[in-house]
Amino acid sequence: MQLPSRLLENAVTEISRLPGIGKKSALRAVLHLLKQEPHVAQQLAEAIKAARQDIKYCKVCFNLSDDDICSICANPQRDTAFICVVEDLQAVLAIENTGQFRGLYHVLGGVISPINGVGPNDLRIEQLLDRVTPDTREVILALSTTIEGETTTHYITKLLKTKGVTVTQLSRGVSVGSELEYTDEITLGRSILLRVSAD
Amino acid sequence: MQLPSRLLENAVTEISRLPGIGKKSALRAVLHLLKQEPHVAQQLAEAIKAARQDIKYCKVCFNLSDDDICSICANPQRDTAFICVVEDLQAVLAIENTGQFRGLYHVLGGVISPINGVGPNDLRIEQLLDRVTPDTREVILALSTTIEGETTTHYITKLLKTKGVTVTQLSRGVSVGSELEYTDEITLGRSILLRVSAD
Repeated sequence: MQLPSRLLENAVTEISRLPGIGKKSALRAVLHLLKQEPHVAQQLAEAIKAARQDIKYCKVCFNLSDDDICSICANPQRDTAFICVVEDLQAVLAIENTGQFRGLYHVLGGVISPINGVGPNDLRIEQLLDRVTPDTREVILALSTTIEGETTTHYITKLLKTKGVTVTQLSRGVSVGSELEYTDEITLGRSILLRVSAD
Repeated sequence: MQLPSRLLENAVTEISRLPGIGKKSALRAVLHLLKQEPHVAQQLAEAIKAARQDIKYCKVCFNLSDDDICSICANPQRDTAFICVVEDLQAVLAIENTGQFRGLYHVLGGVISPINGVGPNDLRIEQLLDRVTPDTREVILALSTTIEGETTTHYITKLLKTKGVTVTQLSRGVSVGSELEYTDEITLGRSILLRVSAD
């Protein structure tokens, strides 16, 4: 795609560096901006710059925040005895969305993945151990059920056990609302082994 | 989706205003930028601002350009006797990509579409008529084959006829490489009516 303008080419290249946005979508985005009032592009540019410059990590849980302590950690209604360990912000959002958890989070920043060059020291595991006090009743490991996620869960569980805290992980089983016929066999097998009382 | 940071929320909102980018993709884009060096977000923001501020419309054909006259109109190798009328930049790129056209373009800026509030005066039709001189051998109308595109082709054809210039449009027919079974019946019907010599 040979664009007729270097400025256009440049904007398309920069936008298409974002994950999941190809050259064609990037071009459509720039052409859209050219049709809008100048302040639309201005606001977009400023919002991107401000986000990168001023968003902080919460000093307690490492979730993204505008302040030193995020709104969840600063909320006196939350139960500080429960810490839910997650990979990233999206996992926090997904769990908050369920409305089933009133404790605090700890955002690891990823999972152990040798193939991607992520070792335990690249994650906020040390900081998690420091957060566990005698007041901590339970640490819930809510990581992905991929090999990397399971490895990380296993690694952290071993470390936390030495602290004498209760460590749990999310239950696995058949999704709610799914037909057994379409459930993968590993999940189905585990959900038979880990069957629960039907009352 | 209740985001934990107003700055994050703001960046996600602005990015998700772009066509074809939803809230989730926008969030992924911002989180990606937060993980990169600060200059990545900075460059993206600057490229967007520069594109909106400094990209011009070519004074001859109204294609996008960094200069007053675009690189196609400024190219002495192009045949100025042929003008190909298109809706937008993407159509210019598509035709350039074929390597089959060595004339100049005229970018209308859309097609007549009463439902979207686009009338003939919103398009660069007047400027097209001004470009047609006795040296112009042919005006090729290369608009979409939608109802709006066909209406616009018809409207412009009538105006150009008064100028005594040859007006053509793209041939219609079965796509190259397609199976007849899957060709829609209107296209197939027209391609029988408009059949060409098989030599």
